[in-house]
Amino acid sequence: MHSGTNLPQVGTYNQSVVLEAIRLAEGISRVEIAHKTGLTAQSVSNIVTRLIEQQLVLEIGRDVSSGGKPRVKLQVNPGACYAVGVQLDRDEISLVLVDLNSQVLQQASLPTELKRGPWQIIDRLAEAILALVSAAQVPTEKVLGIGIAAPGPLDHLRGIIYDPPNFVGWTQVPLKALIEQKTGYPVVVDNDATAAAIGERWAGNAQAVRNFAFVYVGMHTGIGAGLFIEGRVYRGSTTNAGELGHVSLNIDGPLCSCGNSSCLEVLCNTGRLVSQVKQGLERGELSSLHGTPELTYTAIQQAAMAGDDLARRCVTQNAHLVGRAVVSLVNLLDVEMIVLGGKALRDVGPLYEQEVQQVLNDMIVARTWRRVKVTLSQVGEDAAAVRAAALILYECYTPQLLGLSATVN
Amino acid sequence: MHSGTNLPQVGTYNQSVVLEAIRLAEGISRVEIAHKTGLTAQSVSNIVTRLIEQQLVLEIGRDVSSGGKPRVKLQVNPGACYAVGVQLDRDEISLVLVDLNSQVLQQASLPTELKRGPWQIIDRLAEAILALVSAAQVPTEKVLGIGIAAPGPLDHLRGIIYDPPNFVGWTQVPLKALIEQKTGYPVVVDNDATAAAIGERWAGNAQAVRNFAFVYVGMHTGIGAGLFIEGRVYRGSTTNAGELGHVSLNIDGPLCSCGNSSCLEVLCNTGRLVSQVKQGLERGELSSLHGTPELTYTAIQQAAMAGDDLARRCVTQNAHLVGRAVVSLVNLLDVEMIVLGGKALRDVGPLYEQEVQQVLNDMIVARTWRRVKVTLSQVGEDAAAVRAAALILYECYTPQLLGLSATVN
Repeated sequence: MHSGTNLPQVGTYNQSVVLEAIRLAEGISRVEIAHKTGLTAQSVSNIVTRLIEQQLVLEIGRDVSSGGKPRVKLQVNPGACYAVGVQLDRDEISLVLVDLNSQVLQQASLPTELKRGPWQIIDRLAEAILALVSAAQVPTEKVLGIGIAAPGPLDHLRGIIYDPPNFVGWTQVPLKALIEQKTGYPVVVDNDATAAAIGERWAGNAQAVRNFAFVYVGMHTGIGAGLFIEGRVYRGSTTNAGELGHVSLNIDGPLCSCGNSSCLEVLCNTGRLVSQVKQGLERGELSSLHGTPELTYTAIQQAAMAGDDLARRCVTQNAHLVGRAVVSLVNLLDVEMIVLGGKALRDVGPLYEQEVQQVLNDMIVARTWRRVKVTLSQVGEDAAAVRAAALILYECYTPQLLGLSATVN
Repeated sequence: MHSGTNLPQVGTYNQSVVLEAIRLAEGISRVEIAHKTGLTAQSVSNIVTRLIEQQLVLEIGRDVSSGGKPRVKLQVNPGACYAVGVQLDRDEISLVLVDLNSQVLQQASLPTELKRGPWQIIDRLAEAILALVSAAQVPTEKVLGIGIAAPGPLDHLRGIIYDPPNFVGWTQVPLKALIEQKTGYPVVVDNDATAAAIGERWAGNAQAVRNFAFVYVGMHTGIGAGLFIEGRVYRGSTTNAGELGHVSLNIDGPLCSCGNSSCLEVLCNTGRLVSQVKQGLERGELSSLHGTPELTYTAIQQAAMAGDDLARRCVTQNAHLVGRAVVSLVNLLDVEMIVLGGKALRDVGPLYEQEVQQVLNDMIVARTWRRVKVTLSQVGEDAAAVRAAALILYECYTPQLLGLSATVN
């Protein structure tokens, strides 16, 4: 078991820059790194030597296609380190152990069983993490830490869960401290949406995008946005940025529990969608869903994708509402890309992608001279825990500027 | 006349950090700077020596109160350099020349006369700038450049005005290039709201605030937000962030010219306020405004501040709408402070401050564990051109991290 619970500071700023360049390319030479980063050839050479000594980077043969002197290609050593990712949802906790390339080496899951209360659940989670690491048979000293994605609101810095919807008894639960104490590994806790944004930046569609939002549509946990601003994750002054679900769509509409009116989450949620489809069925609308014994959100998603008019219309209406809130986000933040994901989009992602793109094309202020790209998460819902693992890898290996003024001269 | 039109790169990152520490204090010693910035005493000493040689910083006597060895106090040399600020509004163009402490040494104004079209107006503006610098009798080589605050939309990087409301004929006008060519000074163009945010950060209420928004309520030019994120101005991927005026307050409401519905600007503008008061008068409501020959926005503002119920109610309703849009901004961005300003708040600022603070206290999601401070601009509407001058001073003298990866080792 580890004793310390601080994430390792991995190298200097420029070392992170070089490592990132290697990680994002599929085989890259020292000369290409210098060209790409603006660092001198000498700096790159020194840093690469150090990275090879630390076994973070491997030489993988020579590129002879370029004519002149063959250049040695570099790639990240996937076995240099590992991270555990945990996705904490209402129904299920999923766990993975990944390598530096985000490849899953081991996975597991357990039912959340919210009725047991936070303390027992946390005990079982800690046991599951230690069993996962043990089963993966990797050197424990190479496991950097545990990333946990949980529903908000939460305090990222202290790793405290505040009071998520449906998580009865989870008021001010010090998840980070408890899991660190029980496992010995450093823990990073983030909300679903921010974890998803970091995962997409680390290993998905947003690797080279400076400003983007990951719009996370949860199953029972509302709608949040994870933000990247100027190439870095942005959590806000109290780590509560990205409350897209509480953008009001009608300030004179029905009250939301937050004190505002007609928030996106009030108008667009899985329970309300099921009611809408039920009402359509009761009105006698044509649909393949007549006679379904239990009308679930999953059944509606599948019907919508199979072309059922009623299901498709209701899903698209929900996507439209998400799009309208995203218009305000884009008008305020001028991001280049919107990534869509979250458990509620597991099946109906393409319908959301199309509708949100259409709404942005029609309604953002600056639409005549720019286009905002809407895309589905590349990491995918089945791999949500992989995004959580990216919390650790991102924190250790992405160029960070914090505390810079004190260290640069 | 100057020949180059690039803003000078003033010193290293750490030099900017030290200069900022000196600028924001009223007399500070080398030891205090080291303590505040985290730089070593030796680094601070070297940098201060350089700043004194460059005449950017002055020694202003010794502090004997601290008991031990008396410490030499430092302050910025206000005459080290100067900047011109221009506020371009529909009715008037105001100009100032300020020193490094933002003290106004010279000011001027001219009517905008939009009917003359952009080219003639720009000619006259360039002449007025040269006359202003000449009248100030400062060494022209110490004038760093010209900051221009103009209504958006515009392209900050290229300094092109797109097509602001009421500016007929101002389609794709290369304001930066033209003024640079006609005056010989470097020019920075920014929209009203961003310029106001930079001015407030440079010399106002937001000097130590990491994340804040300046909400700029224009007279005829809509409502925008200037954003500071993680201590730096944020303009967005296409320099169009902060379109607060196009946050929809009812997605099923009347169309806005932007393609969206019931945008804040549609519901809250000076013309609509005048109509609302007129309707109240026609309904026979008690008001001191009965019999006013011409019911202007200014007359209504003054009546509201003098306690007229009808005027005050209508102004407060408008402030409420601004507050509701700001709730979405705060929920998305988790800023610590909202600064209110702009020509439309010249007289009624306090009513806006009170109402927006109340709305935030009641409606932001995270209100139980944090409070967002609402404050009026300290720079003030009569000094809007001073904010524009801050565009230049901020760009030259604030620690900038752009291009960092290429220069740090």
